Amino acid sequence: MTFENEKGIFESLLSSSSGYSNYRGILNWCVVMLVLSNARLFLENIIKYGILVDPIQVVSLFLKDPYSWPAACLIIVSNVFILAALYTERRLAVVSLHISPDNTFSFAHMTQISAICQVQAILLCMCVCVSVGGVISLGVYTVLFLKLYSYQDTNRWCREIRQAKAKKMTRSFSCPSVAQSNGSAAHTHVSYPGNLTHRDMYYFVFAPTLCYQLNFPRSPRIRKRFLMRRLLEMLFLMQLLVGLIQQWMVPTIQNSMKPFQEMDFSRMVERLLKLAVPNHLIWLIFFYWFFHSSLNFVAEMLQFGDREFYRDWWNSETVTYFWANWNIPVHKWCLRHFYKPMLRNGVNKFLAQTAVFLASAFFHEYLVSVPLKMFRLWAFMGMMAQVPLAWFVGRFLNGNYGNAAMWISLIIGQPIAVLMYVHDYYIIHHNKSPPPEPT
Amino acid sequence: MTFENEKGIFESLLSSSSGYSNYRGILNWCVVMLVLSNARLFLENIIKYGILVDPIQVVSLFLKDPYSWPAACLIIVSNVFILAALYTERRLAVVSLHISPDNTFSFAHMTQISAICQVQAILLCMCVCVSVGGVISLGVYTVLFLKLYSYQDTNRWCREIRQAKAKKMTRSFSCPSVAQSNGSAAHTHVSYPGNLTHRDMYYFVFAPTLCYQLNFPRSPRIRKRFLMRRLLEMLFLMQLLVGLIQQWMVPTIQNSMKPFQEMDFSRMVERLLKLAVPNHLIWLIFFYWFFHSSLNFVAEMLQFGDREFYRDWWNSETVTYFWANWNIPVHKWCLRHFYKPMLRNGVNKFLAQTAVFLASAFFHEYLVSVPLKMFRLWAFMGMMAQVPLAWFVGRFLNGNYGNAAMWISLIIGQPIAVLMYVHDYYIIHHNKSPPPEPT
Repeated sequence: MTFENEKGIFESLLSSSSGYSNYRGILNWCVVMLVLSNARLFLENIIKYGILVDPIQVVSLFLKDPYSWPAACLIIVSNVFILAALYTERRLAVVSLHISPDNTFSFAHMTQISAICQVQAILLCMCVCVSVGGVISLGVYTVLFLKLYSYQDTNRWCREIRQAKAKKMTRSFSCPSVAQSNGSAAHTHVSYPGNLTHRDMYYFVFAPTLCYQLNFPRSPRIRKRFLMRRLLEMLFLMQLLVGLIQQWMVPTIQNSMKPFQEMDFSRMVERLLKLAVPNHLIWLIFFYWFFHSSLNFVAEMLQFGDREFYRDWWNSETVTYFWANWNIPVHKWCLRHFYKPMLRNGVNKFLAQTAVFLASAFFHEYLVSVPLKMFRLWAFMGMMAQVPLAWFVGRFLNGNYGNAAMWISLIIGQPIAVLMYVHDYYIIHHNKSPPPEPT
Repeated sequence: MTFENEKGIFESLLSSSSGYSNYRGILNWCVVMLVLSNARLFLENIIKYGILVDPIQVVSLFLKDPYSWPAACLIIVSNVFILAALYTERRLAVVSLHISPDNTFSFAHMTQISAICQVQAILLCMCVCVSVGGVISLGVYTVLFLKLYSYQDTNRWCREIRQAKAKKMTRSFSCPSVAQSNGSAAHTHVSYPGNLTHRDMYYFVFAPTLCYQLNFPRSPRIRKRFLMRRLLEMLFLMQLLVGLIQQWMVPTIQNSMKPFQEMDFSRMVERLLKLAVPNHLIWLIFFYWFFHSSLNFVAEMLQFGDREFYRDWWNSETVTYFWANWNIPVHKWCLRHFYKPMLRNGVNKFLAQTAVFLASAFFHEYLVSVPLKMFRLWAFMGMMAQVPLAWFVGRFLNGNYGNAAMWISLIIGQPIAVLMYVHDYYIIHHNKSPPPEPT
C-alpha cells in the first residue's frame, strides 16, 4: 500500500509521481451523487406542484378525441397497401419469367412509387388530426413505407438473380443477405417466388425489422419467463414515462416559456439545463422501453431470432458510431437500401453519408412537423448539425473526450429542439403570452 | 460484435443472457450529468442571489475582530509548553540513569499531565473567543497536545529500552518504529538522548505528522516545481473554499432555517439534500487542500519523507476502512498511542475500537462546541453512530454496496450535523425566527 518512489519518498497517492490510478470508488460516488441530486429535484417538484400524474387523462385523450378514431381507421386501411404490394410482387414474379429484366424495372418502379404515394396520401389525411392517435398512425405508416420499400427491393434482387440464372449468365449480382438462413433447422428454407404468401408477408409486417429477408433467423421456442419479464417492463415503463412527462416535463416546459419570450439569456440557459435532466431520463427510458422491452417482446412472440436492435452506443467515441449503433433496424435499412445502392452507383462515401443524414433529418422533421402542423425545421437542422459535429468530434476528440462530447450533444441537443417547437407552438396556437410561472 | 447464444438467437446486449458487460461509457455519462446538473444549480444560484463572494469580508474578519489577536498570542504562548516538554524530557533522561524504571513512571506521567493541563487551560481561554482565530488556535493546540503526548510516550519507550539494556535484561519491549530510519543516508542517525535538542523538537512540531520518531524518513532535496504547484493549489483552493461557502453554503443554510423551525418534514429533507451537494463538495476540496496541498507543501519545505497523509479511502467498502485511511496522521497516532497500548493492557479488540471512536467523537465535539460555545453533542453522536453503521455495513453490505453506503453516510451525515448546529446557534443567539427566505 505504500508508494515509495525511486528517491525513497513515500508519495501521496494523488501526486502524479505515485503512479496510483485506482479510482473505482469514484463511479459509486457519481451514482450516489446523481441519485441524491435527482431525489432532491423530485422532492422539490412534488412540494412545488403536488402530484400531477393522472393516468385517466391519457386514456381520455384516446377516447374523447374525435380524431383518434380516424387514425385507427387509417391503420386498418394500411392493409390495402400491404396486400397491394404482395399482389404486385406476385404479378411481377409471373411476368418477369417472360420478358427481359430491363422491362421489369418499370414494373418494379411502379410498386416503389405506389408505396411512396401511400405516404403522401397519408400525409394529407394526417394534417387534420393533431393527436396522439395521429402520431401513432403516422409512425405506423412510416415504418410500413420502409418495410414495403425493402420488400419490393429484395424481391427485385431475387428476380434479377433468377433471370441471371435462367439466362446462364455469370454476371455477379450482389444480393445482400437475401439467401441467409441463420435460423435453426426447424424452419424450412424458402426460395423465390415461394415467399410471396400472405403468411410470409404479414410475418414480415409484424416482425421487428425493416429489412425483408426470405428466410429470417428464428428462435426454437417462445421462452415464457422472458416474455413475461418483457411484458411487465413494457407496462411499468409505459406508466413511468407518462408519469414523468406529466409530473416533470410539462411544468418545466411551461416555466420555460417566459424567459424564452423575454430573451433573458442566463435564465434561458438555466431553464434549458433544468429541462435537460428529465428530457434525457425520459429518452433513456424510452430507449429501453422501445428497443429492449417492446421489440424483444414482439420478437419473442414471433420467434424472431435476430434481437440485435441496438449495439453499445453508450460507449461510442464518435458521432457516426452513435448513429450507426443506437437504432439498428433503421441503420440496417439505410445501409442496405440507401447507402450501399448509392455507393454502387458511384457516389463517394462522404456524400452518401451526408445523404443518409439528410434523409434521416427529413424523417425526423416529418414525424414532428406533421402532427404539430408546424414546419419549423428545428428537427431537420438538429439532424443536419450532426454532420459538422461528427467531423469535429472525429477530428479533435477521441477516447473518453469523444464519448463525453456524444453524451453532451445528446443531453443538451434534444431539449433545445423540444423547447424550440413548444415555444413556436405556443406562439402560433395561443398568440398570447404563455401562462405565468407558478410560484 | 454479435452475441449469438447457444440457441442460435442473436440476443440484445441488455438481455442477461447476452453476457455483455462493457458499460465504460456510463462513467462518462455520470460525469457529464453531474457537471451539467451542477452548472445549472450554480447558474440558478447566481440568478437568485447575485454574486456574494467577498474576499475582503474574510480579511476584515481577521483584522477587525478584537478576539483574533488574543488567539495569535495564544499560539505564541504555546512555545512555553513545547519548551517545557523538552526540558522535562532532558531532566528525565538524566534522572532515569540513576533510579529504577518504576519510579521514572511518575515523572513521565507528570509530562503527560502537563500536556493535558495545557489543553484544559486553553479550553477556558477559548470560551471567550468565538471567532475564526479561536478555531485556528484551538486546532493548533489540539494538534500540539497530540504531538507532545506522542513525544513523551516515545521518549519514555526509549528510556525503558536504555534501562533494559543497561541492566542487561532480555525483556522484549515493544518500541514501535522508534528506531526506523527509512530516510536517505544523507542525514545522520540520532539515538536517545541525542534527540533532545531544540532543533529536533521544533522540526517535529512543524512536521506534518503526529507521531514522534527519533529519525524521520527524509527526502534528499526540495523540489521547487513540486513546491510551487502545491503553493498555487493552496492559494487557489483557499479562495475557492471561501467563495463556495459565501455563495452557496450560507444562503442555503439561511433558507433551511424556516422549514426546520416549522418542522415541515418534506421541506426539511429537500433542504437537507440541497445542502448536501455544496457541503460535500466543500469537504472534498477541503480534503484535497489540507491533506494533499498543504501537508505536502509543509513536508516538501521540511524535506519530510513520509507523504502518506491519506490512503485510498474513496474505494473503501467498510466504514472502518474509511476511518482508518482518510486521515493517516490521526489514524497512526490513535494506533500507536491509544489502540495498541490498550491491546497490550488486555482490552479486547472491539472495545478498543469503540474507545478510539469515543475519543475521536470527543475531539470532534470539542472542536465544534468550544468555538460555538454550545454543547449539543451532535458531532459526538455523529461519530458514535459510526460504530453501529460500521457493524451494519460490515455485516450486510459488501463490494460496491458497501462503498455506496460509505459515500451516502458521508454525503448525508455531515449536512445533518451542520444544520443541527446552525439551527441551535440561531435559536440561542437570535432568540427569534430566522431571516425570511428570499424570493
